[in-house]
Amino acid sequence: MIRTLYHNSKGSLTTDVPTTHWRTVLRDEGGVLWVDFAEEPPDKIEPLLRDIFNLHPLAIDDALVELHIPKIDNWDTSVYIGVHAVEFEPDSLELRTREVDIFLGRNFLITHHRHPIPAIDRLWKNSQSNQHQRLARGADHLLYDLLDLVVADYMPVLDALDEALDRLEDETFARPTTLTLNKIFGAKRALLRVRRIITPQREVLNRLARDDYPFIDPKDRVYFRDVYDHLVRLTDLTESLRDLVGGTMDTYLSVIANRTNDVMKLLTVVSVLFMPISFLSGFFGMNFLGLPFGSNALLITAIVSMVVIPVGMFAWFRYRRWL
Amino acid sequence: MIRTLYHNSKGSLTTDVPTTHWRTVLRDEGGVLWVDFAEEPPDKIEPLLRDIFNLHPLAIDDALVELHIPKIDNWDTSVYIGVHAVEFEPDSLELRTREVDIFLGRNFLITHHRHPIPAIDRLWKNSQSNQHQRLARGADHLLYDLLDLVVADYMPVLDALDEALDRLEDETFARPTTLTLNKIFGAKRALLRVRRIITPQREVLNRLARDDYPFIDPKDRVYFRDVYDHLVRLTDLTESLRDLVGGTMDTYLSVIANRTNDVMKLLTVVSVLFMPISFLSGFFGMNFLGLPFGSNALLITAIVSMVVIPVGMFAWFRYRRWL
Amino acid sequence: MIRTLYHNSKGSLTTDVPTTHWRTVLRDEGGVLWVDFAEEPPDKIEPLLRDIFNLHPLAIDDALVELHIPKIDNWDTSVYIGVHAVEFEPDSLELRTREVDIFLGRNFLITHHRHPIPAIDRLWKNSQSNQHQRLARGADHLLYDLLDLVVADYMPVLDALDEALDRLEDETFARPTTLTLNKIFGAKRALLRVRRIITPQREVLNRLARDDYPFIDPKDRVYFRDVYDHLVRLTDLTESLRDLVGGTMDTYLSVIANRTNDVMKLLTVVSVLFMPISFLSGFFGMNFLGLPFGSNALLITAIVSMVVIPVGMFAWFRYRRWL
Amino acid sequence: MIRTLYHNSKGSLTTDVPTTHWRTVLRDEGGVLWVDFAEEPPDKIEPLLRDIFNLHPLAIDDALVELHIPKIDNWDTSVYIGVHAVEFEPDSLELRTREVDIFLGRNFLITHHRHPIPAIDRLWKNSQSNQHQRLARGADHLLYDLLDLVVADYMPVLDALDEALDRLEDETFARPTTLTLNKIFGAKRALLRVRRIITPQREVLNRLARDDYPFIDPKDRVYFRDVYDHLVRLTDLTESLRDLVGGTMDTYLSVIANRTNDVMKLLTVVSVLFMPISFLSGFFGMNFLGLPFGSNALLITAIVSMVVIPVGMFAWFRYRRWL
Amino acid sequence: MIRTLYHNSKGSLTTDVPTTHWRTVLRDEGGVLWVDFAEEPPDKIEPLLRDIFNLHPLAIDDALVELHIPKIDNWDTSVYIGVHAVEFEPDSLELRTREVDIFLGRNFLITHHRHPIPAIDRLWKNSQSNQHQRLARGADHLLYDLLDLVVADYMPVLDALDEALDRLEDETFARPTTLTLNKIFGAKRALLRVRRIITPQREVLNRLARDDYPFIDPKDRVYFRDVYDHLVRLTDLTESLRDLVGGTMDTYLSVIANRTNDVMKLLTVVSVLFMPISFLSGFFGMNFLGLPFGSNALLITAIVSMVVIPVGMFAWFRYRRWL
Repeated sequence: MIRTLYHNSKGSLTTDVPTTHWRTVLRDEGGVLWVDFAEEPPDKIEPLLRDIFNLHPLAIDDALVELHIPKIDNWDTSVYIGVHAVEFEPDSLELRTREVDIFLGRNFLITHHRHPIPAIDRLWKNSQSNQHQRLARGADHLLYDLLDLVVADYMPVLDALDEALDRLEDETFARPTTLTLNKIFGAKRALLRVRRIITPQREVLNRLARDDYPFIDPKDRVYFRDVYDHLVRLTDLTESLRDLVGGTMDTYLSVIANRTNDVMKLLTVVSVLFMPISFLSGFFGMNFLGLPFGSNALLITAIVSMVVIPVGMFAWFRYRRWL
Repeated sequence: MIRTLYHNSKGSLTTDVPTTHWRTVLRDEGGVLWVDFAEEPPDKIEPLLRDIFNLHPLAIDDALVELHIPKIDNWDTSVYIGVHAVEFEPDSLELRTREVDIFLGRNFLITHHRHPIPAIDRLWKNSQSNQHQRLARGADHLLYDLLDLVVADYMPVLDALDEALDRLEDETFARPTTLTLNKIFGAKRALLRVRRIITPQREVLNRLARDDYPFIDPKDRVYFRDVYDHLVRLTDLTESLRDLVGGTMDTYLSVIANRTNDVMKLLTVVSVLFMPISFLSGFFGMNFLGLPFGSNALLITAIVSMVVIPVGMFAWFRYRRWL
Repeated sequence: MIRTLYHNSKGSLTTDVPTTHWRTVLRDEGGVLWVDFAEEPPDKIEPLLRDIFNLHPLAIDDALVELHIPKIDNWDTSVYIGVHAVEFEPDSLELRTREVDIFLGRNFLITHHRHPIPAIDRLWKNSQSNQHQRLARGADHLLYDLLDLVVADYMPVLDALDEALDRLEDETFARPTTLTLNKIFGAKRALLRVRRIITPQREVLNRLARDDYPFIDPKDRVYFRDVYDHLVRLTDLTESLRDLVGGTMDTYLSVIANRTNDVMKLLTVVSVLFMPISFLSGFFGMNFLGLPFGSNALLITAIVSMVVIPVGMFAWFRYRRWL
Repeated sequence: MIRTLYHNSKGSLTTDVPTTHWRTVLRDEGGVLWVDFAEEPPDKIEPLLRDIFNLHPLAIDDALVELHIPKIDNWDTSVYIGVHAVEFEPDSLELRTREVDIFLGRNFLITHHRHPIPAIDRLWKNSQSNQHQRLARGADHLLYDLLDLVVADYMPVLDALDEALDRLEDETFARPTTLTLNKIFGAKRALLRVRRIITPQREVLNRLARDDYPFIDPKDRVYFRDVYDHLVRLTDLTESLRDLVGGTMDTYLSVIANRTNDVMKLLTVVSVLFMPISFLSGFFGMNFLGLPFGSNALLITAIVSMVVIPVGMFAWFRYRRWL
Repeated sequence: MIRTLYHNSKGSLTTDVPTTHWRTVLRDEGGVLWVDFAEEPPDKIEPLLRDIFNLHPLAIDDALVELHIPKIDNWDTSVYIGVHAVEFEPDSLELRTREVDIFLGRNFLITHHRHPIPAIDRLWKNSQSNQHQRLARGADHLLYDLLDLVVADYMPVLDALDEALDRLEDETFARPTTLTLNKIFGAKRALLRVRRIITPQREVLNRLARDDYPFIDPKDRVYFRDVYDHLVRLTDLTESLRDLVGGTMDTYLSVIANRTNDVMKLLTVVSVLFMPISFLSGFFGMNFLGLPFGSNALLITAIVSMVVIPVGMFAWFRYRRWL
């Protein structure tokens, strides 16, 4: 799907500008054109980017091939910004990151993504309804709005992970199973993936807030600094979540060790109690003195020793602090 | 609750300046106005900050929305400083951090917080009673007093954590239970939370002690350096406490492993002693030679072997250092 | 094997230029000569490099002796670039790195390697068939093509490792054996080896993309930056794979601990059930009341207690949460 | 105790200059006055430092309040240097650090400490007897002598810790108990404490060796560099000791795991040997064929199977490498 | 032993120049004098260094006192270079480092060491026989030759450690004992010691290759860079060996845990099989129905249940995946 929003220098907003008109509207330096390529095949996008927007071939390559880490590149005719949105399944603890490629020019913003990105859809609706406002402030401000929304979507994901970790920790202390461990491992992997994205993304925003870029008004840097601050907080949160995951894994091992110890103690108590008296019953059962028992004295001896010996052993082990 | 302290340029101190007078007193460049917004709803504070103090909208947003890490921002009409006070429950090892938002202007200091902050209350009382002193030295010096008190409250918390760790370590060596582990984990989390606050807070103080800020007298930087040094010490202490927590967790595992080993040895000793003689009593109980025992020799053989064999096995295992 | 590709300044491509002509063709400043020394003995290469290409003796030494980490050295008459190609056996998780030594001069590129390098063979074929194109853009662009291909071969290796780790993780959760551990350890070692190469290789590309080198057109730096970005991504991937290996090793230990705990519980249950009734059968088998049983009451007592006691113990241990 | 050493510009040495004369002797710019405040109450020291030596109030506060990390501050009238001496109990592995506060002025050196510091006492005796030498070279050289001695006392402490670790490691391999673990933990804590002091102390010496300080002759910096080098070596040693402590803790866990494994094997061997034959003696003891044994064949069967079955099982388990 | 090699400016080589002639030959600025102090007492060396070579007292102190980390110091009349040679016992995994102190002057090189250093002996022999060559290139080139040889001796040591680790890893997987652990720990310690030397040694070479030193020809820096590159490779190798040691230690623990699990399973299988039937034989042995067995039916019941019950239990546990 290719969709466009166009705000001309006189202040009117048009949607669905046909491809053939793009070259024309781009000549209006005071307008802002936003083109969103959603789930479109690369070979359809590539000629448009090259011929109409005059983007550098390497820049286009970077954008159309997957597997980037977030980065920012300053090309002659545009600034390329690659960021990632994030999706999370709280139940399976599965986390996916979705690449968004952005080209910022003097009077255009191009977004390209292979999967639906909720943040973009929200901004699109918002820009469409809330007439003139968003696009009127320039392409660079639209970029800020977009990045702000994309980054804002990370926080609920980390919160969900935080809660999942809390539950996992409770589970670890209460009734740890291999499934618990499996989930802890899943949380670990989710965090690894988030971190892989957030760190370079923070660097991208840092550069937007600090460096000179041709199409970004220096007065707008303060907004990017705001997004940057948000990412710093996220990094921080990620690090402490990672620390928690590590701690939960250690705890798991310790809780299991503890339980094994408890079970072992129980087994030992049972053995200490019954092994001696089992022997005694066997011993007195040898009938070495004839049948039935030669004397009551012997019977009493047997029964008394069956009570005294295990109790005594148990007391002795307790006293020696072996149990 | 909104409360104000006003020290005019002639040296007299007033409390509870009504909102409507703020604009007037702010015109007195030699005075100092301290406004404290405690547990007030944002929509009541926001217009005051915007209209009377002329603060930047983004700055106000930053202050009124929760979840900051400590930071300092230089705005045109004020310096924003976000710090955190700390609260600690020694019994549950629960640690909470409370955000304090501060705006420093030429002749005003605004504090905003969502929970009661003891450090602010102490400073307030002190400023009120101890007439003229605190506010007379300027808004920047009042800021120093405030930060000094906020940071001073961290040390007793870390000391309490240190003591809690000492107790946990003793507990780990003496009678480790899952509860002990739970508490170690709690201490770990408390330290994670402190560290998340102290590190950026130290950076804030570092910048106050080093950089130029419009409303801070360069001669006062030395005071902020003092608070900074205090925070450096706290960071250091936090790091070594973290190391201790890690060590305690490792120790826990080792102590449990040790105890399991002891219990196992005991079980093995009991089994080594009784399994052979249980067998013997069964064997001689098979009555293969008639009832009662065919000869005393056999009886003696049985009893002697019941003594010699387990003792011999036990000695052999000892000798081979298996026990 | 020594093979050559020569593209003269008039645009024609020749293969297999004899050694004796090298000096002549090098005089054509607009041509490009690519010499590839594949699996040739050093003493055959050394005089050629020294006498014809005027390379520095230390530079030649560096190239002909094995065991380098990737590096770049700027010599007077050439730039030396040492990189590593990578080979991987997915089954044995064995990973080998193959050194490629490259000398870039104004109008020549020399490659030297002790093992077949697929990336070089692909580039060779491509340069030969796809006439004039590759070499026509200069020796520095040929260098870019080569480095790009060498680095591109890392990604499938890391992907294979990633998949192997996924399988190992599943295996760890499902049926961990010492063999699993052995493979985890193998993956760890493979990653160590990759990291040892990638990190300095990234530095080499960083310098090619950033610094001035006599024989590299500054306009081509953007291409090396592209390869550099690729290596940054690879480093990143390696780090998170390393983290995964570490996590898998921890998981292995935890899974084993869990299983031991399960087996222990089972043993304890069996012991708790049978030790008391074994004793009872021994006890009542002592025949202290004559044969056959003195009364049915006694028989019933025996059988009832053999049912009640183990069940009771088991219930009690359950209730006390020991099992 | 307040004690003084005074070396005037004519070369004569006086001890115990009364407080009232300090102001006078300080006027002699070529003299050197060393004042040592040992275990004196702050309120007695404070007026002397403020009124006679003109030290900055904050500097005095820093010096008289405990709990510093080593630091250096350049004040107008003096350089403040806070360092720590170290004390160690090899038996209990208890390590204490003792703060020493030093003020260096043009012609005076002030030392202040709350506990006896052997290094200071040695230097004092040495300065007193070995007339004129030490103080004649100026206050900055006296500072060097002092720091050199304080730092020299660290090495025997680290050596003692190293030896203690060696013993602990031997103990861990030979007969690990919870006490061993307790001592390892103690060594860990001692090292944490040393590191907390050495790192900033090294930074202090680094700055003395590198930066300009008003009362330090640049030609003397080479001496401070010597102390700095000493501290670098100590840091290095501390780090490798920490690594050893960590390794010893891991080893402890592994040795215990090993022992548990050995005990388990023994228990299993005993069970494998006796459980089957215990059963057999029970089985043949059921007397199902009348009493005494119906035939010798049955008796022989019983006895042979009691030998063959356990041996066979044991061999089988061995063969399957389960034991 | 004091030995000397002297190459005068006319090109002739002399050995064993008597101490009394040193001052004379040093006047020949074009000559090169190499003095090697091997295992000589400090008080014999010290006056020679001070009076004849005019070395700085602190420099001499540094050289004659043991326990340095490698360093380089630029003194007025010489450059002091302290490096370490390495010795390794592959069997005991014992690694020793031997300090070599070097003074480089305009026309002299002094080496001092407390133990025989093979690298120095090789260079000495080589310089003696291979007439004029080595010393003719100047004292700085002789320094390069020496450092090159010293550093070259590290590689076989690390290779031996690598092989030892390979064997240890195999041993860990095959038949881990406490002795294995002991050796792993030994390897760890050896690597710690190497690292402690290599890192600062690399820094020394880095400074030789980069900085200006009065007696080193800038054109020779390229040689020191070569040694530096060698040390970078060694650091790299050390780090990955350390990583392997850590992995081997983790593996050890995991293998032991695995084995304990296997032994536990075996014990549990045996118990599950024999505990029920032991009980049954006891139960049916109670003779409650008279002797011999009242009916064949009972006998058959007994025997059948002795087969069915253990097999059933075993199958059930298998089915529930408890075994």
